[in-house]
Order: sequence, then C-alpha cells, then structure tokens
Amino acid sequence: MTEWIDLRSDTVTKPTAAMREAMAAAEVGDDVYGEDPTVNRLEREAADVFGKDVAIFVPTGTMGNQIAIRLHTQHGQEVICESRAHVLDWEMATMASFSGCVARTVAAERGILTWELVRKVIGPKLYFRAQTGLICVENTHNMAGGTVTPLGNLREIWAGAREAGLPVHLDGARIFNAAAALGVSVAELSSGFDTVMFCLSKGLGAPVGSMLVGSRPAIERARIFRKALGGGMRQAGVLAAAGLIALNEMPKRLHEDHANARLLAEAVAGLPGVEIDLECVQTNIVIFSLCDGDAGAFVAALKQRGVLASAIGPHAVRFVTHYDVSREACERAAGIASELLRAR
Amino acid sequence: MTEWIDLRSDTVTKPTAAMREAMAAAEVGDDVYGEDPTVNRLEREAADVFGKDVAIFVPTGTMGNQIAIRLHTQHGQEVICESRAHVLDWEMATMASFSGCVARTVAAERGILTWELVRKVIGPKLYFRAQTGLICVENTHNMAGGTVTPLGNLREIWAGAREAGLPVHLDGARIFNAAAALGVSVAELSSGFDTVMFCLSKGLGAPVGSMLVGSRPAIERARIFRKALGGGMRQAGVLAAAGLIALNEMPKRLHEDHANARLLAEAVAGLPGVEIDLECVQTNIVIFSLCDGDAGAFVAALKQRGVLASAIGPHAVRFVTHYDVSREACERAAGIASELLRAR
Amino acid sequence: MTEWIDLRSDTVTKPTAAMREAMAAAEVGDDVYGEDPTVNRLEREAADVFGKDVAIFVPTGTMGNQIAIRLHTQHGQEVICESRAHVLDWEMATMASFSGCVARTVAAERGILTWELVRKVIGPKLYFRAQTGLICVENTHNMAGGTVTPLGNLREIWAGAREAGLPVHLDGARIFNAAAALGVSVAELSSGFDTVMFCLSKGLGAPVGSMLVGSRPAIERARIFRKALGGGMRQAGVLAAAGLIALNEMPKRLHEDHANARLLAEAVAGLPGVEIDLECVQTNIVIFSLCDGDAGAFVAALKQRGVLASAIGPHAVRFVTHYDVSREACERAAGIASELLRAR
Amino acid sequence: MTEWIDLRSDTVTKPTAAMREAMAAAEVGDDVYGEDPTVNRLEREAADVFGKDVAIFVPTGTMGNQIAIRLHTQHGQEVICESRAHVLDWEMATMASFSGCVARTVAAERGILTWELVRKVIGPKLYFRAQTGLICVENTHNMAGGTVTPLGNLREIWAGAREAGLPVHLDGARIFNAAAALGVSVAELSSGFDTVMFCLSKGLGAPVGSMLVGSRPAIERARIFRKALGGGMRQAGVLAAAGLIALNEMPKRLHEDHANARLLAEAVAGLPGVEIDLECVQTNIVIFSLCDGDAGAFVAALKQRGVLASAIGPHAVRFVTHYDVSREACERAAGIASELLRAR
Repeated sequence: MTEWIDLRSDTVTKPTAAMREAMAAAEVGDDVYGEDPTVNRLEREAADVFGKDVAIFVPTGTMGNQIAIRLHTQHGQEVICESRAHVLDWEMATMASFSGCVARTVAAERGILTWELVRKVIGPKLYFRAQTGLICVENTHNMAGGTVTPLGNLREIWAGAREAGLPVHLDGARIFNAAAALGVSVAELSSGFDTVMFCLSKGLGAPVGSMLVGSRPAIERARIFRKALGGGMRQAGVLAAAGLIALNEMPKRLHEDHANARLLAEAVAGLPGVEIDLECVQTNIVIFSLCDGDAGAFVAALKQRGVLASAIGPHAVRFVTHYDVSREACERAAGIASELLRAR
Repeated sequence: MTEWIDLRSDTVTKPTAAMREAMAAAEVGDDVYGEDPTVNRLEREAADVFGKDVAIFVPTGTMGNQIAIRLHTQHGQEVICESRAHVLDWEMATMASFSGCVARTVAAERGILTWELVRKVIGPKLYFRAQTGLICVENTHNMAGGTVTPLGNLREIWAGAREAGLPVHLDGARIFNAAAALGVSVAELSSGFDTVMFCLSKGLGAPVGSMLVGSRPAIERARIFRKALGGGMRQAGVLAAAGLIALNEMPKRLHEDHANARLLAEAVAGLPGVEIDLECVQTNIVIFSLCDGDAGAFVAALKQRGVLASAIGPHAVRFVTHYDVSREACERAAGIASELLRAR
Repeated sequence: MTEWIDLRSDTVTKPTAAMREAMAAAEVGDDVYGEDPTVNRLEREAADVFGKDVAIFVPTGTMGNQIAIRLHTQHGQEVICESRAHVLDWEMATMASFSGCVARTVAAERGILTWELVRKVIGPKLYFRAQTGLICVENTHNMAGGTVTPLGNLREIWAGAREAGLPVHLDGARIFNAAAALGVSVAELSSGFDTVMFCLSKGLGAPVGSMLVGSRPAIERARIFRKALGGGMRQAGVLAAAGLIALNEMPKRLHEDHANARLLAEAVAGLPGVEIDLECVQTNIVIFSLCDGDAGAFVAALKQRGVLASAIGPHAVRFVTHYDVSREACERAAGIASELLRAR
Repeated sequence: MTEWIDLRSDTVTKPTAAMREAMAAAEVGDDVYGEDPTVNRLEREAADVFGKDVAIFVPTGTMGNQIAIRLHTQHGQEVICESRAHVLDWEMATMASFSGCVARTVAAERGILTWELVRKVIGPKLYFRAQTGLICVENTHNMAGGTVTPLGNLREIWAGAREAGLPVHLDGARIFNAAAALGVSVAELSSGFDTVMFCLSKGLGAPVGSMLVGSRPAIERARIFRKALGGGMRQAGVLAAAGLIALNEMPKRLHEDHANARLLAEAVAGLPGVEIDLECVQTNIVIFSLCDGDAGAFVAALKQRGVLASAIGPHAVRFVTHYDVSREACERAAGIASELLRAR
C-alpha cells in the first residue's frame, strides 16, 4: 500500500526507523507498579516540556481526555465545550457513560472559544439544575479545520474560569501544531489549564500513546481512573520509547505539514463549486465544501487516483497532512484534486 | 400567603377540594405488587385517553422522561433534543448519570422541531462514533414560551424517525395545553410517539404525579426502571385519586389559562424596553425580555406588589398562568406589570 | 379483599382514618422551591426525633438509601454491607447504576454486623484497587428475620469507622421496630451514623414516604440527588401530612406487632419439618424453613385459607406483622398455619 | 535490577529478544480503521486457537473483562462470580462504574465454581429485583492460588447457563496455565463460553496486551466499547507482533513454571507456622499463610535477600513463577524462604 497518498488523518502515521529501534531496545518494567524506567522518563520529560508537575502515559487521546473529564467533574454535571468538539463528537459519549456528564455546547466561529461565549452557558447556581463542572478547550480544533486558539483567548478563559471557580482542561491532541503555528511553546499554551492531554501519535508519529499532564494530586487520581478504564498496561516502556522520540524530535518538523496543508488549500481554493475558508487553514488540516457536490463521490474518485481523503459530511472533504506524506506527494495530491474538481 | 398572585410556574397549583376529598376516600393497595386499584384505574384511563396500550404512574415528570430515555437508549448513545429542552436543561443531567447518554441538540425557531433539523444531527453509522438512540420532542415547549409543535411537524418527525429506525419520545408535561391550543386530542398528538410522558400536576392541578404511556413491553420495562430510581411507591392510590380528577376534569378549562396568558402578553407588548414575540404566546406561558433591564430587579419589584414571576435569564421574565390565578388576578397582575414597566 | 389476613409485608399497610383526614386538610406548597409547609414541618420533626440537623422527605426507602450511597461514595468504590442487605438484594443494583459502586459483602450471623467482620473487608489502600466508600448497616435486618443490631455493636462500628475515616449509613427502614425491641430511642440508635433512612410507610402506616436525616451539608446535597432521581415532588404536603401521624403516633404501638410475630413463630416452632431460629424473632418478622417442603406450595395453601405470606426462598416462608392485622387475625393465621403444617 | 528474583507476579515478565525483534519489524496500519495487518493476523490466529469466530486486541486484561461484562449485561443487573474473583477484587469496581452491575458472589472451595453453587444465586424473576445478567468464571483462579476449574465443572456450568438463558464469560487471564495443567486445549476449555478473555502478557510474556474472543456480533460490539473505554489504539501492530510470539511460542513452556511453583510450595510446606494447601498448587501460583506471622515483614525480609514476593493479606504470602525466573533462581528462592521461615 506504499503507493497511497494517505491524507485521511495524521493518525495513520507509522513509527520511524528510530522509533522502531528504540522500542526494540527499551528498558522496561511493570508500569502498574510504577517500575517501568522508560515510561517514568517519558512522564518526567513530558511534564517538563509542558511546565506541569507530573504526567501519565495513556494508550489513547480519548482515554486521556476522558480521564480528565472524570477528574474534574461529578456525575450529574455539565462539561462546556465547543459544539463540534472531539470530546463530544468522537469520544463515544464516554463523558456520559463513564463520568455521568452532559455536554453544554457553544458554537464558536472557526471553533475558537472566547470567555464571552463560555460565560453565557455556565449554569445558574440552583440546586435543581445541573451545575457546570468543567470547561474544555480543543487546540488546535480538529473539526473546525485545525484552527488555533490564540494565547489572548486562552488567557481570558483561564482568568474567567478561575474567578468562576471552574477547572479548565485542554484537549491538546494537536497542541504542538498550535504551538508551531503561533511560534510559542506548548508550556505557554498550557500554563492556565488544570490538565492537558496531548498525543504522541498523530502528527508526532508514535505508534501508540498520549499523555495527560497536570498537578501531582490530579495525576495521582488519573492513575486510578486509567486502571478503571483498563489502561494500566504492564511493560509500556516499549511504547514510551517511541514516545520519547515523538516528544523530543518530531515537533520541530510540524511547520512542513502546515506548509503542505497550505499548498493543498490554495490548490482547491477558487475552483468552481469549492467553498473554503482559507483563514481556517492554520495548521495541518484542510476542510472544504463541494457546494452542491457529493463529498463521498469525490473522495472515491480521489481514491481511484491514489489519494485518500475523508468525507466528513455530505459535502465536506478533509485533508490532513503529516510526515508520512512528503512535499512532493502533497503536490501530486493537489494536482489530482484540482484536476478532478475542474472536471466536475 | 393567599394574597400572592403566583405566576412563577403552573407547578405551584394546589389540589382542588374535589381532589382532596378523593384522596381521603381513595381505595388503596400495594402498587409495587400491582394491587392498588386506584392506581390501576388511573393507568387504564390514561392509556385510553392517549390511545396507547398501558400507562405507569410516576412521582414526577422528570422521572417519567428519564425512564423513557433509559427505555429507548443504550449507554454511550446520543439523545436528540431541542437546545433548550427540559430533558437537558432542567433534569439534572440524569440522561447522562442514569442512562449514559449525551444530548445532541438542535436549535429550532420558537423551539419547534422539524424533521429537516433533526435529520441533520443523526450520527453517521460508524462504530467509532456514538450512535443516536432517541429523538425527544417537547410539546408545548416550556423555555421557548409554551410554543406548540403542530401535527404536521410531528407527522414528519414520526415518519422520518420510523424510516431511520429511531424511537421518539414526547415530553408532554403540558401536552394538554398543546391539545387545547390546536383543538385536537392528546391521542392525535401522541399517535406516532413510542412513549409519552405527561403531568397530572402543573396545569392539571394534581398535587403529585405524572404518567408514562406506551406499549406494553415498554411500560413493563419502565416498571423496572421506576423501581431502580426509587419511584416504586406503595399506597400511591391516594395520589392517583387526585390524578383521576386531573385527567378527567381539568383539561377542559385550560383555554382559560391561555386567554389569561394572552392578556398578560398584550399588556406588556409595546411597552418601552420590552421585547416580546407574541407569536410565541400560544398557551399558558409568557416570556419577554427587558432590553437593557435587569430581570431579577423587575421580578423583585413585582413581588413587592404581590405578583410572583420568574427571572429565567439576565433579561428574561416568565409568567405562567394556571387555575390558581383567576382572570381577575391576571388583570391585576397585568396592570401592576405594565405600570412598573412604564415607570422604568 | 378485607377478608385477607395479609402477612406478606408491612409495606401493605393502609393509611388510617386520621391520616386520610390529615391528607385532605393538608396545607401545601411547591416543595421543589422549599415552600410546602407540611413537608417542612415533617422534615423538622423528623430531624428532631433522630437528633440530626435536618431531614429530607423522599417517596421511597429505596430512594432514601440510594441517595445516601450516592452522597457518601465516589463512582468506582465499594459499599460494605451484610450479605443479605436490602440495599444489595432489593434495590435493583442502583448502587451500581446510579452510584457506580459494587457491594462488598459480609455474611454475619443473624445479619448482625460487628466491627470485627466489617474491618476485615475494608479494601487495602492501593491505587489499583477499588477503595471502600461506605459502610451500610440495616437495623432491623429484614431478610435475616427482623433481627436487631444492639447498641454495643453499633458503637464499635461507629468508632471503628471514624478511625478508618469511613462514613456509615443506616438503612433504618424499620428502625422504630429496633428501638421498640431494645427499649431505646431511635436517636440513640442513630447517633453515630452520618445518615439515617427510615420509612413512614411499612410499620408506621403512611401510604407513601421515607425520610433521610443527617447533617445540613449532606442533606443539601441529598436534595440535588433527589431531583436527579426524579423524586422532587411538588405539593408533597399531602403525603407529609400522613407522615407526621406516622412519625408521632404510630411507633408506640409497634410492640403489639412484635408480640404477634412471637405468637406466630411459637405456633410453628416445633412442628414437624419446620426449622426456625426463635432467637431471630425479635421484632415483627418471622422467617422459617420447611426442611424438605416447597415454600411456594405452602404459601399457596395458606392463601386458599385466606392468609397471605411470602415465599422468600425455595424452602423459606416469611410472615410480617403490622397494624392492619389484629391480634385476633394473627391467632387465626397461626392456627391455620400450624394446621397445614401438621397435615403435611 | 537483574539481581532480583521477582516472584511477585507473572505480570512482571519482560519481552523476549524475539518479541523485541518482531516489534521493531512489525508491519503496521491504523487499527481504528481495521487496517493494521499485524493486529489483524493476531486476531485471526487467536480466534483459531480458541475455536471462536473472531477476536479483538485490547491493551489489558481488565479492559477485556470489562468489555465482556458490558457486552452481556444491562445496567442494573448482577454478575455472578466467585467471591475472590479478579473482576470484583482487582478491576476497580468498573463493572459498576461502566456497566452499572453489582457482583453476586459465591464462595467456592479453592475458588472452583460448580453449577450447584451458581444456580443458587441466580436472582428470582421478579420485576422488582435486579436480574442476573452474566456468569463469570476465572480459570485459573488467581487469588485462590492458581487453581484450575476442570472440564467437568465447566460443562455443567455451560449446560446450566444455557438452560437458564444466561451468558457465560471466561476470565482466562491464565487459561493457558489451566490448559497446561489439565493437558487439554484452550479451545476445549473455552468451547461453552460466550466470550473468553486471555492475556498475552503475564505468563506468555508479551509486554502489553490481551484478547477477547467470541462470536462475530459480540466482538463487533466489543469494538464499540473498546473505543468508548479509550482502548482504540492506532498502530497497535507493534504490540501485536510480540503478541503473536506469545500466543504461538510461549504456552508450551508453562509446565516449567508449574514445576517451579511446586518446588517452592514443597519447600515451605511443613515448616513451622506455615499453612499451605498443596492441593491448590496446580499451576504457577503458590499461596501460603504464616499462622501468626506478619506477611509484610516476611516479604520485607525476603526482599533483603533478593527475593520479591507479595503479601496478599495480613498473613498471606504469594509467589508467582514465570519464564523470567529460572529453575535455578526458584531453587535459590526456595532455599532463602525456608531458611527465613525456619529462623522465625
């Protein structure tokens, strides 16, 4: 299948040669007992990079986010999030089935939350009404097209939440993409959050694994919920070894993916029947609409030409760039896409 | 406190003399064993009135709705409802804490759902995405101002849902108000719903109690969940006796409440700083906004003059008419309200 | 059906004439808003009788117990209880479905817990093991035959739990029976418990209703969970009016039920094939075994003679005495039972 | 730490050289999309070995068991299991917090369930009582000392459960140990179970991973719950590569671990103050009691001499043998243990 240009998602990235080597050589132990040296090292380094006390390794981003929701809320509360948030749309309603919470959604332009929007949906303090338990931000925002929430918005949200006595969690599955786009550190983008989840897989290329970072008491409780969800792996050091490379080596090349996304976006912008908000193409995701076209049919046509993309709605198509698709492959994909679109 | 004109909600209605007498004389038995003759009679009559197989008596509308959600869904699914639905806003996130479901909301004009709107938010059939488990309609719609969903919309929703293989529940806390406004029977308004919850308290005046009606297998399972929620009362016939009067005698007078609501609405419409959509005033609820006024302060001023109302937002005020507030009292309240509004 | 001698359970008791009268005359208000004067009075008096800060009225004992479990635990914890406890056997696994807890059971002789037994099943403090969240005592113990846990045992449990930092809840559905048997006040029997649930229905004869008593912060949170479970009734004063009579008038006659139970127990003890532990017959419950007989068949035979009893196991039969079965009726039932047993 | 003789658990086993090599070379894809060839191969081979339709790879045995419980039950039901079952004692009450079920326990001699015992605790079919949803067997039984449930018992349980209409799940974390001890195939030991969970880690030595096998519809639903629990890993083929070796190569050497356990058991049996049931030492686990000794102190003393063991109760000590502890090391450990025990 090496012939495919796979732009469906950055989740398809495969481990690099260096990662494979590190996995084979990893020093391991039983991580349920806290004895896996490679996991311990990864947790220490991740905490340092994010400027938090401690970190915990989890098998998936979904588990990391859902542990965070469980940590900060009580059953019967509400989680404020953007209306297309991953925690609501792609995490199997686990906020309800494991944490007993409903989502209280805010529709934000380009998926970028502001305190003004959040403030309005905080529940009134009445005993006969579900209370707000958590505010959850997604940066970059996947379904809004990889958009970046800037530091200014975050600072207002952090300040407002603190005043309201509410915890704030970052779904930072692609926080390194946001940091690359803004030219700031992930630590800066995380400083006011109580917990941050980020993925070692996706753009950073590790085969498996995400991290949840936060204060020591929060992460100690996270360990309980990780076990409860069946995420207490034993010799997880084999995965953590790849994760260390993902954490330390891979962020610096994300700007290449962003440039490739730009290339793809500009290739389709302006073509007949294509609707695209170029302002949204800030990182490695490109979403556009085929005004009266069938996204499924277009994605099928692309596939016949060797390009994989996602139909994320009846008319909406998504490309995601990543290190397994080179500049040259993106150029090829851009050519194929624009050719097909012109021919419609 | 007989001096108050209490327009906060129709939940404040007190049992009539006839109800009190019936309660005192009620023949009772142990309803957990299915042996309370008065409960049994109420359940039979309610099923008849709604044209459904069977009914079950529950202590509150919230319990009735939440049993219905539990009946129709699996943990980890989504419940489609209007964005200001009572099941989401005023039922304590119990759809999450007891049924493990999140709400998938649709913002509908005047709270009146259409199939077109519902259809768009049914989740795609992907194993890695939470599936839609239930569509929930609220008729009349409380927070939208007592608005009525007409039969045409319902028929489209019933047909669409059937085709999509999805169950449909009616939160009919005030379905008798909808029936009165439309001049159709509650049976007609219920015919395509799998289950219907309606309240004997509220506008119908019973002190305690609601009903869930539906098919025999559905209501048999409802009995299980009623017990699980702690709603398996013993000699509930004392309540059912009042409920029978509510069911049989009280619906015919609801048009009076609607006329009173109209009176109140027209009294405030057109006053300086008042924003009201008279199209919404279809039943016994009046909601209006004080453009740049403080709803809480206005409600406090009303209270000083003997009129109780609800501030349901920073600027929004709600009146609800019911049989404990006479035409004359409503005229008095209208006068006081308009006087205060003119003086602002 | 007045001809039946109904010894199935004390849940079948019907409201007295005084209760019916009180219900008809009750002053009521909207209890969700805290405005029902009769509910408020009942809650105050119940708190006083039990020597606790405050009380809350709930529709059933199950709801009261399950709110208490929710109050004291976190999802993913264990509730220690006797192996035949009502909270485990007859409350629909709601400790799991609403509170996310499993039961950690202790088999105690005659259902009477001791600290020694409880202590052994408190979970070790390991993060990868579910922690004990609550200790739950049932007094009297229904399925053990209405046995009474004496003050000495309670004091040890209270002291041990305090030292272990664990809350203790009393399922006191029949705590007035325990108090009558021991000749102490319910306040004494409740003093070391964090919360106590007791029933106004059952032996005290109210048609519907139970109370949860405890500290002010606990009961304030209980109000939230009562609403979440759908127990927030409106004009509940009609029920509370009967409850006040149950609380104030009915406890003093429970010794009659105990004498009647004794009568029944002694009538069957010693008969061929009957196994009964007379030491267990301490209150209003009589449980005995038909060594190689079929309890269901025996109960059916009793029914043909006008006596209702419960088969609570393949061989086990239960009688429960209460104020709707007079001394004379119990004598008749005793005669019928012994006649049938002799004839086997 | 190579100097330690680590007998705490077989969870501490480290990947073999062959596993490490396979992990480094593994062909991978995105397993959420079903595209990881190595995972797919492992799932196919595991299903074949167990004689079931299909299999699913999960990060831990806890996740596999808890998915199975979720699959077979409804919230508000009971799971029948032995009183010291891993699903109850060591899985964080997740059967309650994720599946809404309580455990209904049976104390079985040596942890070996019989149909006779199970049958007695199946709940009566009353709507007001939680129903039995699942029977769960653990083979070998960890906390009972690695005891084996023989085919005869299983056949009775399978037949009884089928007749009762109840599903049966096998917690087969160490089913290969049971198969080795009995000299039968894992397929035979699994044939009547609806689902079987087994671990690739533990005695089989893979660093991470377990499998759930069963019918196609069951495992399709399992995929949903795996995602919901956050177990939907991406390039999981790196783990599956080690799992394939665990599945195919490692079972044949388990008899060595059993012989080593026997050696350890016999070394301590008969020593003063040691209580051990040699009949229980059937596989790779040795549990013994220090009659009036402190297990913690004894384990600490062993540690000072380089031997790691577990104190699993105030007086109870556990050794678990596995391929990372050679015959020679076990001999050394046996010598040290008996020396310390003699000196007490």
